[in-house]
Amino acid sequence: MTVTTSAPHPTVSTTADTERAVQLLDRSRALVRPALTEAVGRLHPWVAEMAAYSFGWCEAGGAPTAAAAGGKGLRQALAVLGAEAAGAPARAGVSAAVAVELVHTFSLLHDDIMDGDATRRGRPTVWKAYGTGPAVLAGDALFALAVETLASAPGSHVPAAVRHLATALNDLVSGQADDLLFESRPWTGPEAVGPDEYRAMAEHKTGALLGCAAALGAVLAGAPATTVTALDRAGRHLGLAFQVIDDLLGIWGDPAVTGKPVHADLRRRKKTFPVLAALDCPAAVRPLTRLLEGTEDLDDATARRAAALIEEAGGRSAALAEAHRHIAHVHACLDGLPSGPHALPTALRAADDLRALLAFLVRREM
Amino acid sequence: MTVTTSAPHPTVSTTADTERAVQLLDRSRALVRPALTEAVGRLHPWVAEMAAYSFGWCEAGGAPTAAAAGGKGLRQALAVLGAEAAGAPARAGVSAAVAVELVHTFSLLHDDIMDGDATRRGRPTVWKAYGTGPAVLAGDALFALAVETLASAPGSHVPAAVRHLATALNDLVSGQADDLLFESRPWTGPEAVGPDEYRAMAEHKTGALLGCAAALGAVLAGAPATTVTALDRAGRHLGLAFQVIDDLLGIWGDPAVTGKPVHADLRRRKKTFPVLAALDCPAAVRPLTRLLEGTEDLDDATARRAAALIEEAGGRSAALAEAHRHIAHVHACLDGLPSGPHALPTALRAADDLRALLAFLVRREM
Repeated sequence: MTVTTSAPHPTVSTTADTERAVQLLDRSRALVRPALTEAVGRLHPWVAEMAAYSFGWCEAGGAPTAAAAGGKGLRQALAVLGAEAAGAPARAGVSAAVAVELVHTFSLLHDDIMDGDATRRGRPTVWKAYGTGPAVLAGDALFALAVETLASAPGSHVPAAVRHLATALNDLVSGQADDLLFESRPWTGPEAVGPDEYRAMAEHKTGALLGCAAALGAVLAGAPATTVTALDRAGRHLGLAFQVIDDLLGIWGDPAVTGKPVHADLRRRKKTFPVLAALDCPAAVRPLTRLLEGTEDLDDATARRAAALIEEAGGRSAALAEAHRHIAHVHACLDGLPSGPHALPTALRAADDLRALLAFLVRREM
Repeated sequence: MTVTTSAPHPTVSTTADTERAVQLLDRSRALVRPALTEAVGRLHPWVAEMAAYSFGWCEAGGAPTAAAAGGKGLRQALAVLGAEAAGAPARAGVSAAVAVELVHTFSLLHDDIMDGDATRRGRPTVWKAYGTGPAVLAGDALFALAVETLASAPGSHVPAAVRHLATALNDLVSGQADDLLFESRPWTGPEAVGPDEYRAMAEHKTGALLGCAAALGAVLAGAPATTVTALDRAGRHLGLAFQVIDDLLGIWGDPAVTGKPVHADLRRRKKTFPVLAALDCPAAVRPLTRLLEGTEDLDDATARRAAALIEEAGGRSAALAEAHRHIAHVHACLDGLPSGPHALPTALRAADDLRALLAFLVRREM
């Protein structure tokens, strides 16, 4: 997908930004991995195997993976940079980084059960590989381990950090609940899902944990509320942008890149942002709802017709504009971080690092 | 079931003890309920309904229940008495009480999914009433709310309290994992489950959270380590006793009282304490394993024959002795609480209250 932007900040990264972002991700993984491995090693051996499988460290059964199958480690990098943005050394963000990686993996494990998703990153999901009950248990274990890790961090800001994490989880649950409830809501009429409700759902489901990742290291480091809020809001807008981009890929993404069938979200009649935006166009309402109403998966031809209708009605361009708006907000939030001659050099560099990382991610996603 | 005991402490309560215990449970519920209701009210409305259903406050759909359908509230009473045993006022234990009730309910919700149990306290389990995905989500929400509640408690002992809760949850996960894995272990040979492995499983699965309930209020109140350890160990032994009693009821319990079919655990070939103890008797090994090997549920006649064999081989009396041993340990732990002329009157009364409550519970269960 090619993206042009009129946002005040560059959202397309340069080669130097890319190198810097890759280095930042590598550095955080190297910094956090020993503590993450040690934490997972304290779990019951069978539960630890399921955790290692979900991190991409091993195959089902425990054999080490030939190639790295895990995620980019975005959340741990945000936590480390968040601590640095508060003027603390990178290592002050490690407990927060471990906690957010554990919580992120817990949420993937349980979401895959709720959504009935059978594969993730090209491998069977944990519930497919080990069974639903064990996957519920492994998720619970990761959650408890995250709380234990954070509560064992040094310093006097632990209660605030635990509260921040718990609040993000409460938001996450709300977002997931709304997403599940959206399925049975009508496409039109007073009970229809509006774009603002969608935004609240996406902020909770995807944004809250990214906001927490960006802010938690700073909370642990005792940063002032303005810094914590700026980081949290930057992460939330990033999550909103990611969710809309994910929605775009769920309709127009290349199956070779997304790993999902073409029009995957349309086939499943998901209430994604491009569809809801298209339904704002009066001329599209009747033909589009005629295609989307029902419960069976859409066939190829119907999904193709629906995708064309959504694009004609402006749903695709509205979603792109929405993503850009949130990316601009991310940069505005980062501009709210301490700056100028009195800011610590660590904090200034971290804010620049965050900009480089986010520009790289946006380019990668879009 | 009639129980005789040679334990040094009375385990059969008097009428005065019963009245005192009922008053203690009532007092704790009255003290804790407003904070618990307020916490649940902060959840997403749909998730709050599932939580209220699992507490027995409403029917599926949200209508208030005609009669109280919830549990006794043992854990909240332990948390409040634990705070008092540390010399703090009862209200100092309220955050701990809310947290342990939330975590207990979370664990029931997820365990019912893992164990495939369709009813609890005479009503459909949450996953049966609302679906597996929503029940996973509701459990996660209760867990997050417990952590948030504890992290928001006043005072400087919050990190220690959160760590205590997280450690108990880690134990709970280990116990549940072992219990699930026991199912596929053989009845005999080097891979068979021994009584000590059973004890470790039961201490983790049932004891850890009762230990946490008894200790958490004291941790929040800043009690010395000896008090916290005495309370935690008392709760763990209580859990071990409960688990063995539950095993006895799962074979010889009256279906009218237990709400389960006669020989329920035997039919499902569960590796419970009486069976494992019977397999310690060489003469019983061959006839008993012949009945228990296989995967289909046992029929009436086979379950009856197995129950008789287990009793002949001493499994029933060994389990009763085991339960009594743990109850004696509970009392020994309570004797380790501060006492004598220098202890605070609140603490002395709380230790007596705990003895009365536990004697009542044991009498009720056995």
